[in-house]
Amino acid sequence: MDKRNEFSVIGKPLARVDANEKATGKAQYVDDLTLPNMLYGKILRSPHAHAKIRRIDTAAARKLSGVKAVITGMDLPAKLYGTDPRFADEYALCRDKVRYIGDDVAAVAAVDEETAERALDLIQVEYEPLEGLFDVYAAREPGKPEIHEGKKNNISQEIHLNAGEVEKAFKDAEYVREDTFFSQPTYHAPLEPHAVMARWDENGKLTVWGNKQIPFYIRRLLSHTLEIPESHVRLIKPYVGGGFGGKGEMFALDVCACRLSQMTGRPVKIIYTREESLVCTRRRHGMTITLKTAMKKDGTILGVQGTLLSESGAYNATGPLATYLATTFLNLPYKIPAVKMDSYLIYTNLPPAGPQRGHGVLQMRYAADCHLDVIAKELGIDPLEIRLKNAVSQGYRTANNMNVKSCGFTDCLTRAAEKINWKAKKGKLPPYHGIGISGMGYLSGCNLVPHTGAAALVHVHEDGGIKLLTGAAEIGQGSDTYLAQLVAEEMGVPLEDVQVISGDTGITPYDPGTFGSRVATMSGNAAKNAGREAMRQILEVVAEEMEAKVEDLVARDRKIFVKGAPEKSISFRKALKIYMYRDLPMPVVGQGFYQAPVHVPDWFKAEDDPSATYSFGAQIATVVVDPETGKISLKEMVNAHDVGIMINPMAVEGQLQGSIHMGTGHALTEDIIIKDGLVMNPDLLEYKIASPFEMPFVYGIAVESESDGVGPHGAKECGEGTQISTLPAIVNAIYDATGIMFKELPVTPEKVLKALKKKNEGGN
Amino acid sequence: MDKRNEFSVIGKPLARVDANEKATGKAQYVDDLTLPNMLYGKILRSPHAHAKIRRIDTAAARKLSGVKAVITGMDLPAKLYGTDPRFADEYALCRDKVRYIGDDVAAVAAVDEETAERALDLIQVEYEPLEGLFDVYAAREPGKPEIHEGKKNNISQEIHLNAGEVEKAFKDAEYVREDTFFSQPTYHAPLEPHAVMARWDENGKLTVWGNKQIPFYIRRLLSHTLEIPESHVRLIKPYVGGGFGGKGEMFALDVCACRLSQMTGRPVKIIYTREESLVCTRRRHGMTITLKTAMKKDGTILGVQGTLLSESGAYNATGPLATYLATTFLNLPYKIPAVKMDSYLIYTNLPPAGPQRGHGVLQMRYAADCHLDVIAKELGIDPLEIRLKNAVSQGYRTANNMNVKSCGFTDCLTRAAEKINWKAKKGKLPPYHGIGISGMGYLSGCNLVPHTGAAALVHVHEDGGIKLLTGAAEIGQGSDTYLAQLVAEEMGVPLEDVQVISGDTGITPYDPGTFGSRVATMSGNAAKNAGREAMRQILEVVAEEMEAKVEDLVARDRKIFVKGAPEKSISFRKALKIYMYRDLPMPVVGQGFYQAPVHVPDWFKAEDDPSATYSFGAQIATVVVDPETGKISLKEMVNAHDVGIMINPMAVEGQLQGSIHMGTGHALTEDIIIKDGLVMNPDLLEYKIASPFEMPFVYGIAVESESDGVGPHGAKECGEGTQISTLPAIVNAIYDATGIMFKELPVTPEKVLKALKKKNEGGN
Repeated sequence: MDKRNEFSVIGKPLARVDANEKATGKAQYVDDLTLPNMLYGKILRSPHAHAKIRRIDTAAARKLSGVKAVITGMDLPAKLYGTDPRFADEYALCRDKVRYIGDDVAAVAAVDEETAERALDLIQVEYEPLEGLFDVYAAREPGKPEIHEGKKNNISQEIHLNAGEVEKAFKDAEYVREDTFFSQPTYHAPLEPHAVMARWDENGKLTVWGNKQIPFYIRRLLSHTLEIPESHVRLIKPYVGGGFGGKGEMFALDVCACRLSQMTGRPVKIIYTREESLVCTRRRHGMTITLKTAMKKDGTILGVQGTLLSESGAYNATGPLATYLATTFLNLPYKIPAVKMDSYLIYTNLPPAGPQRGHGVLQMRYAADCHLDVIAKELGIDPLEIRLKNAVSQGYRTANNMNVKSCGFTDCLTRAAEKINWKAKKGKLPPYHGIGISGMGYLSGCNLVPHTGAAALVHVHEDGGIKLLTGAAEIGQGSDTYLAQLVAEEMGVPLEDVQVISGDTGITPYDPGTFGSRVATMSGNAAKNAGREAMRQILEVVAEEMEAKVEDLVARDRKIFVKGAPEKSISFRKALKIYMYRDLPMPVVGQGFYQAPVHVPDWFKAEDDPSATYSFGAQIATVVVDPETGKISLKEMVNAHDVGIMINPMAVEGQLQGSIHMGTGHALTEDIIIKDGLVMNPDLLEYKIASPFEMPFVYGIAVESESDGVGPHGAKECGEGTQISTLPAIVNAIYDATGIMFKELPVTPEKVLKALKKKNEGGN
Repeated sequence: MDKRNEFSVIGKPLARVDANEKATGKAQYVDDLTLPNMLYGKILRSPHAHAKIRRIDTAAARKLSGVKAVITGMDLPAKLYGTDPRFADEYALCRDKVRYIGDDVAAVAAVDEETAERALDLIQVEYEPLEGLFDVYAAREPGKPEIHEGKKNNISQEIHLNAGEVEKAFKDAEYVREDTFFSQPTYHAPLEPHAVMARWDENGKLTVWGNKQIPFYIRRLLSHTLEIPESHVRLIKPYVGGGFGGKGEMFALDVCACRLSQMTGRPVKIIYTREESLVCTRRRHGMTITLKTAMKKDGTILGVQGTLLSESGAYNATGPLATYLATTFLNLPYKIPAVKMDSYLIYTNLPPAGPQRGHGVLQMRYAADCHLDVIAKELGIDPLEIRLKNAVSQGYRTANNMNVKSCGFTDCLTRAAEKINWKAKKGKLPPYHGIGISGMGYLSGCNLVPHTGAAALVHVHEDGGIKLLTGAAEIGQGSDTYLAQLVAEEMGVPLEDVQVISGDTGITPYDPGTFGSRVATMSGNAAKNAGREAMRQILEVVAEEMEAKVEDLVARDRKIFVKGAPEKSISFRKALKIYMYRDLPMPVVGQGFYQAPVHVPDWFKAEDDPSATYSFGAQIATVVVDPETGKISLKEMVNAHDVGIMINPMAVEGQLQGSIHMGTGHALTEDIIIKDGLVMNPDLLEYKIASPFEMPFVYGIAVESESDGVGPHGAKECGEGTQISTLPAIVNAIYDATGIMFKELPVTPEKVLKALKKKNEGGN
């Protein structure tokens, strides 16, 4: 099924529009930007995991030569903020207490970074230490201090999903098994740390250059916390050196830079150190997931009952959403007629957690797909077979109403298995060699928050140059290229004719940004529609000129002709001259919009359809375990993903590869080591992301499923879902190699050795 | 006639939208901008007024440490450019010969300005000197060298206007008189010199930050000279420190910075010194104008016959246009039934001339209005009376087809006369005291070049914030404020709710820019229409909500209500919430456009209507001449101007005052002194613009004429025309004080003393 022949730009492995600038080092990131009279900001952080702030004395810091302003929480409006106003629990700078080591206490603006740092040393803070709660179990013990007032047992939120007849499922079960898994918090590790430059001008208008995934939401949050009208804030997103979810929120630096600029009348830049980026922004939610599954002996899933403890750290951030997503996505990609999940988001005195590629779903998939392999083994069913048997397909509706409009999941499983030669390998590998499989379903067009709809504008200039104005945020994932391809295709011009201006709330149309795998669907449709609308206006003029009907005209290769008669064409440029000389306004402006058909007013109930459509995927890993050292060598991975249609095969390949890199680190090497609330490895030397030596050989397979008409030309997300089944594939392969299911990540050599020793001693 | 009561934003003396940023010194001009790895460029200039270039050796300059690139004319595409392609005669860097002292020969990019300057010294150029032609008379002598090949007698262009029965007029004449006047070249003297920063990126896209009046034309010229598609060039106009016409063209620095950036792969900035700004950009056209007028003895003008020699300097630039404007505007503001003008644009080996506030018309008005005073005196008619007698009025069509759709000229004359108490003063002042009057008519919406139409976009954000995207270029004249007021009025919000993004070819719609007094009419209508269109979309939703008709709704003070029922309103912000929650795309986008009704395909014939409408004005000066020193004290000036309607009285007042400042300098003190082609006073110490001590007390009168429906709410230009009759008012006042008509500007004390001496000795 190759849909690509009908296209001239879509489906081609074109170089990214930002490739040259990035490859030559000329792309400008926040730290490359300067403004006259710019000051540098630094933030004072709490040395206590949990303490009341009694007094802050900034007098000495203020007196230091070169210091232009010092602020504490009391110098900011008392405005709590959060990703969702319902869960707002955070001040940009703490007012009354600190809740983790690294919490934001005060900020300084000075003529240089060194002076700002010296000023921090001069700020005296008097704390009254409180008991620190460092894990979800300690936090929810009765009688412990409330990290946020009124949150009993430090439970921030609860989600209870109850769909289908769960009791009956367990009554009917021929086999029941329960397992508990723990997925550790991980750091996003973007190459570029968090950075901001703010300029509060003399008209009270604020311009902020920030490496953000969600410019329009940041605008809203800055407006809220600084008490300035939204339209007075312009958030410009320069090049961004990676986000992965970690740049999808507002942090102290953003608010502080703005306020310090307002106070000093000078631009202020704040760049987080690697340590601040790792400790004081966000990390993935650590989740402890217990699943009990009711099965028929033939491998049919009857129902699942489970609990989930999600560790929020010191603040909510996206915790409620992550907990919800983990809970609801238990229901994909396997048919589960009855589900009961009781999920809890729990505060601790640890660095706060937030969104990361695969947000919540990844943790659940680790638990559920590894759990499934243990079941399969006990039932004597091949792991591929049990997945095929229970796989959802087009037209399926989950117990909690998720509507599968299109589905390439079975294709993903079979094509991945073919690629790796599953049948030849499974059960036939030498000792300590293993093979593991996993599946996943994910959001493609998250529909959970208000105003998820996207708008786009296409400007066509008189020489045929096209500008796409989109609020979508290119953060390195390739959205600029993807969107430009859609517009180029619509207008019959090569990619190079389309320039993208993206993620600037001052000039680009509203778009919520890069999260929830919504750009492919939402922003993609908006851009496509904008191109189509601009083209319609041009074609109307051309139709008159050519004495043809608009609907009979074809635009391709910078030419416009009547269908079937390409020899009698006029050039795109000529068409624009005709347009212009009719005294029609330049540029031609096409406005496009897309709003997913379903709204979810209260996703928190987990009983609605959270996405415009869903992507699916399957992964297979092969590993070799060294019984002497415990070292796991990840040999090969297949990453098969239902992309709907490939808009750019090279970009798809990049995502399929990159996802394996992040997943490999998560499975095998990455861990934020914390002792009494203090992060012991806050740098990229000690926090071990996967190096080239840990990387397997990756086979990427893009499965093009039958279009459901949701995404542009049927395209689906291909950047988050691609990482989701990496963990269980690897862990299941280790399970196959060793017979040991590792239920706590990462699977380090130490853990392997210890487990092997215990097994050989007759344990496990 | 106060039209202002019906408005809430229009007609109010509101502070400029850029006032705070400018007053606090925070507005960023090109020189304030920096980019990583930026280089600095400098240009090598010709020491010869006229010479062939035999050889340029750049080897030594290239070898200098810190020099990154050196270019000559041969390193640029061989593309002649000019304001109008028909008159293109200029290379960014000379290829074969130089034509004035200061002509652009080579350019260097280096790590700092000092190094770049040292590199210039190392470039060896071998010249073959040619005879220099330093005035229009020498230049058109037979047998002289051709400054541009093929231009016989160095006449670049000729314009011959012949309208009405001129021969008959002179046959019927009861009185005939001929005078010759010379108006000297003057420098624009903007506070900010010419500056550019260019960045040629790795995708071959070019971004240029330039202090330009005409971003879209510069984009076109850069595209042409650098052979790069227009849409690959983005011209961003930061704050501009004054233009006055002098930043209305492309200069060597623009092309060189771009090419040097392309070659080095690094951003390049070039800032002209004051000397370069004065000598090597443009200056006003020196014009020698002879007028012979046929009169009836009662003061009725029957016809005029004249010749005009316009000094182009080394290149055409806007010379053809200036010559045309001077020629055609002989026909306003006095009725001349028959006109014959023979006008010549002549090359010399002097710095090239270009547009300056009042472009050509000002020079003609000096000649014609002073000539008229000599006639009036000889006929024994009061100068005010002779003007009133011949004044054009609404509905008049000049001999050469200029269509006077509205006209406040008579009002200007009478109100100015009342203000200064003309009747009490004229003929009744003490010796050496004088009073002089003058009139003028000017373009309001120049319609001479292709694509003079303007487009604008209004974006309305969800909180009611409004962005106006306009290609019009704010250069200090106040267009951002003017346009924002029009949009605010249209949308019923205060001015502060409208932010303007202007003059950025990458994101703002097409607009030719700031020249020909077209912004008030063209850009004004486009902005107004864009606001109206955005509002229409919002009102449609509100109408449904309020169960009313769109046409019955009124928007005012951030509220929308049914006409006559303001108590039942909904707020603008609420209206937008309603709009957004109907899943309509954000922002609301309104597109506006305006194209003047008449096209002038070939203005060069001087027989068509060159403007959408015309502004008019009258000025009166009072002076005291010191017979001992020749010093002229300008005491008072009235500047009465037909503005149609005042959009912003404070801005109007600023223009009325500022025009007198420039006109005073032109009349009395400013002169570019040249010896053998070399400018002797290329700085603001020796080139004497009027200081506060030369300034008279200025009375500004804004005459609001009956609307002709052309400009927005009937508004007309009020920034160029306001300066046009300053010269003749002052010179006529000196004539009144001394009995001597000064026919060469400026009227310096030396000239006055010499003339008084001659008169007392029985001369004149």
